[in-house]
Amino acid sequence: MLMFFQYNWQVRNEWFEWCKELSANELKEKRIGGVENILNTLLHIVDVETSWIRAIQNKRDYVINFDEYTTLEKVKDLSDLNRREIEEYLLTWSAEIENEITVVPWSGDQFTKGEIVRHVIAHEIHHIGQLSVWARELDRTPVSASLIDRGLLRK
Amino acid sequence: MLMFFQYNWQVRNEWFEWCKELSANELKEKRIGGVENILNTLLHIVDVETSWIRAIQNKRDYVINFDEYTTLEKVKDLSDLNRREIEEYLLTWSAEIENEITVVPWSGDQFTKGEIVRHVIAHEIHHIGQLSVWARELDRTPVSASLIDRGLLRK
Repeated sequence: MLMFFQYNWQVRNEWFEWCKELSANELKEKRIGGVENILNTLLHIVDVETSWIRAIQNKRDYVINFDEYTTLEKVKDLSDLNRREIEEYLLTWSAEIENEITVVPWSGDQFTKGEIVRHVIAHEIHHIGQLSVWARELDRTPVSASLIDRGLLRK
Repeated sequence: MLMFFQYNWQVRNEWFEWCKELSANELKEKRIGGVENILNTLLHIVDVETSWIRAIQNKRDYVINFDEYTTLEKVKDLSDLNRREIEEYLLTWSAEIENEITVVPWSGDQFTKGEIVRHVIAHEIHHIGQLSVWARELDRTPVSASLIDRGLLRK
């Protein structure tokens, strides 16, 4: 399971690098689809990953105020900060945990932990696909989405 | 691993249904990013999944002629046909297979089977993200990409 997260984090960091070439206006300009701008897409990815992985651990949900994360640096810092905690948890992941039930604090719904981690993985890849279209609309080459040959280790 | 494929197949079939509302022109109209049109994106997803999962099994690669798959029905039929073979193989999947090496016939490169199946999974989700932007550009509501609450079974 960890390999997928390593893939997502590697790709996400490449998008953070890629975004450095953009103006503040291009980062926040309203676009069609998804979360409607590039910066908020990256913040939304961090937010969703953090909320679900904290829910699995029965930790309380942090509600992110999107108005506070107005620069690429702030979003990247939050991504780095939260990733440490998430990675620490995922290193303890095992097949036995898959069918354990999590009650989600924001809705009270119940899901298996296996379903939740897959949801988080797919969620990020989906939004990154949206970024790739917006990149082309900006006449730029998107970050490669290929998972193969990134030197990811299976865990 | 199978849960991700079940997710992708369910979402893909919902996109096939969604596409029935489009004209032939809308399906094939050139768009910005990815494989540049909706029909070829779906065909490309089927093509890539089939090629890699056949490679894992040391089966020869089918080279798909994109000029032959000019209608939604033809692409959907190929998706259904190939899926049966792919599902049959994936039902035999186990953690022990993950580190086995596959030599890919089209390049001679070597990858672990674990890396290949994750590549195939991420590949489809990424392109579906692109479809979701194009859907909004067509003023239509895209298929939901949420993995949670689809009744997928862990395997």
